Amino acid sequence: MQKKYLMTPGPTPVPSEVLLAQARPMIHHRTPDFNNVVRECVSGLKYVFQTELSDVLIFASSGTGAMESSVVNCFCAGDKVLVCYNGKFGQRMQLISEAYGLDVTVLEYGWQQVVDPADIAAHLKANPDTRGVIITQSETSSGVLNDVKAVGAIVADYNDCVLIVDSITGIGAVDCKTDEWHLDVVMTGSQKGLMLPPGLAAVTVSPKAWKAYERSTLPKFYFDWKKYLKNLEKDTTPFTPAVSLMIGLAESIKLMREEGIENIITRHARLAEATRKGCEALGLELFAPAEGRGNAVTPVWVPEGVDGKKLVSLMKNKHGVTIAGGQDDYTGRIIRIGHLGYFGDFDIITTLAALEMSLMELGYDFEPGSGIKAAEAVLMG
Amino acid sequence: MQKKYLMTPGPTPVPSEVLLAQARPMIHHRTPDFNNVVRECVSGLKYVFQTELSDVLIFASSGTGAMESSVVNCFCAGDKVLVCYNGKFGQRMQLISEAYGLDVTVLEYGWQQVVDPADIAAHLKANPDTRGVIITQSETSSGVLNDVKAVGAIVADYNDCVLIVDSITGIGAVDCKTDEWHLDVVMTGSQKGLMLPPGLAAVTVSPKAWKAYERSTLPKFYFDWKKYLKNLEKDTTPFTPAVSLMIGLAESIKLMREEGIENIITRHARLAEATRKGCEALGLELFAPAEGRGNAVTPVWVPEGVDGKKLVSLMKNKHGVTIAGGQDDYTGRIIRIGHLGYFGDFDIITTLAALEMSLMELGYDFEPGSGIKAAEAVLMG
Repeated sequence: MQKKYLMTPGPTPVPSEVLLAQARPMIHHRTPDFNNVVRECVSGLKYVFQTELSDVLIFASSGTGAMESSVVNCFCAGDKVLVCYNGKFGQRMQLISEAYGLDVTVLEYGWQQVVDPADIAAHLKANPDTRGVIITQSETSSGVLNDVKAVGAIVADYNDCVLIVDSITGIGAVDCKTDEWHLDVVMTGSQKGLMLPPGLAAVTVSPKAWKAYERSTLPKFYFDWKKYLKNLEKDTTPFTPAVSLMIGLAESIKLMREEGIENIITRHARLAEATRKGCEALGLELFAPAEGRGNAVTPVWVPEGVDGKKLVSLMKNKHGVTIAGGQDDYTGRIIRIGHLGYFGDFDIITTLAALEMSLMELGYDFEPGSGIKAAEAVLMG
Repeated sequence: MQKKYLMTPGPTPVPSEVLLAQARPMIHHRTPDFNNVVRECVSGLKYVFQTELSDVLIFASSGTGAMESSVVNCFCAGDKVLVCYNGKFGQRMQLISEAYGLDVTVLEYGWQQVVDPADIAAHLKANPDTRGVIITQSETSSGVLNDVKAVGAIVADYNDCVLIVDSITGIGAVDCKTDEWHLDVVMTGSQKGLMLPPGLAAVTVSPKAWKAYERSTLPKFYFDWKKYLKNLEKDTTPFTPAVSLMIGLAESIKLMREEGIENIITRHARLAEATRKGCEALGLELFAPAEGRGNAVTPVWVPEGVDGKKLVSLMKNKHGVTIAGGQDDYTGRIIRIGHLGYFGDFDIITTLAALEMSLMELGYDFEPGSGIKAAEAVLMG
């Protein structure tokens, strides 16, 4: 037997309470029992998204479905949108927007750069007929955190432009004040901060986004927001929901309410800081820039002379600790340590210890225990 | 404590083995372990769909997502399609086709009628430029079984016309020979004959359907078939899959392989026949016509003088047995008894006994035990 640890930025570990809630005998979705589940999921997600003004809609799909829903429900073919990205997942919104025939302008940044809100302000000033600004809050591929609060303040001045925020790995890890920051559409997926298996996605829809919906002519059915809203009035869904995942969500929301959203965000900040300090103490260099580091995942450069792919597979196969490697251009060059959702102090210790042992095995020279020591200092602080 | 029984045509009961497989600790989806799960799910679904020629693609969505996928992947806006329906779910394909701007002709039948293949033949002869015929095999709202084999033989003669079959409650309950019957696209959902919670959907795609895909220009992303096919070559999925449901699917496929698809279909026929004979012995009239009765669900007229809604709620609240009521025009007028998926002899006995007791309580006059007696005769035969 080898104990296994899932230290990736999604799927993330699922608490036993949630795993077992999902394993309850199946119930029918058109029943008062399930209506209660829907009500609790929606109200809990509003709490997590920090919104009272927006509706929250839940889909049986992965996060990409929620991304697509934001495009098909807010726009017409030919609409001008600005897609800002600095990583793989942000780029996906460009691909979706293009697939639906939007007139896409891209503000592309390096994976180690933060999106500059001033660039967005300048673009909107020059192109006041832009119908949407699309941005990722917490970029999973690079660990970079974009300042969606600042972007919200800019887009709020444009009545016919909605701000769409992919917060798939942001929600539950970093602060995301949907109402206060004027975020019109915010999305997340279940296998992230919500501590569930993948298969559910959620979006918030602000009054401004509903206005965009009314003029939108892109074809839609399964992801048609209005169908979901109409059914929510009766605490139900237009199509058969993912019943077991919804029951799991109600359970994880219970855990999140008990801890409190502010405490959850503080915990993530603390664990991320311990991970960063631990890695730096080992002589490893952080990938994300100091001015924009998210708390869901810590990407770190693989040190000179170490094979990044070997490092990931050694940690997994020899030590049972699964972390993520780099994607696209950074395959084999960075590792990504997840600390999103159901994570506590000793998960960080475990990951750092597995990293230390694997680095030793690969001949990298450092002071064994130094990573743990630095992490402990943060965790005790 | 009240023991609860789910006797609806979806969601259906989930075997404990499957419930618990889903509750295993989360694993990452980009790993050899999960590649094995994908491979087993696809190969198992090919077995269940009885196909070697078609590809099988799996989505994190409910059945409606698979329905939408068949439209957006096969057609261009303005394409002529023929939608044949005799119930609520068949009608949904019309709504989806219209949402995507197809030129839809409807062959509508009453809910108690079988779609007549001769009408389809006549339509295609008069409109040889029809690009698709869309039909439901097993209509859940009415219990009617349409003869998709006969329709397959007709559509096979038209090289540029695909046959799309909604077999969401057909697969695993009635015979569906995808290859032999020339069915180009067949779809199902997880919460039906596959004995899983809802949240997964699958489609088969024949070489002819891939040809249709190549000329299709409707916008798509999340449900883009080619993205799934390309990833299947590496035993993976383009977007994060519903990991726990896929692990459950691998488990239920194990159960289905052990029993054998022919035996599964025979079991469903036997249980459906016991249900029908049991209801008739109680003096209740079957809703679906003799020439087209499916084996997934048995709809029955509520007898004169009995309140149909009360009957369903009495069975549920007093006896713990959940069956389905009628939909749309038949709300309160019919009941629908599910026997789809994880069902055995004594589930039928249980349902009939609860039905007998509830009918007695509502003052309906019949010989108590007569339904059970008739069912036993079938089950012993």
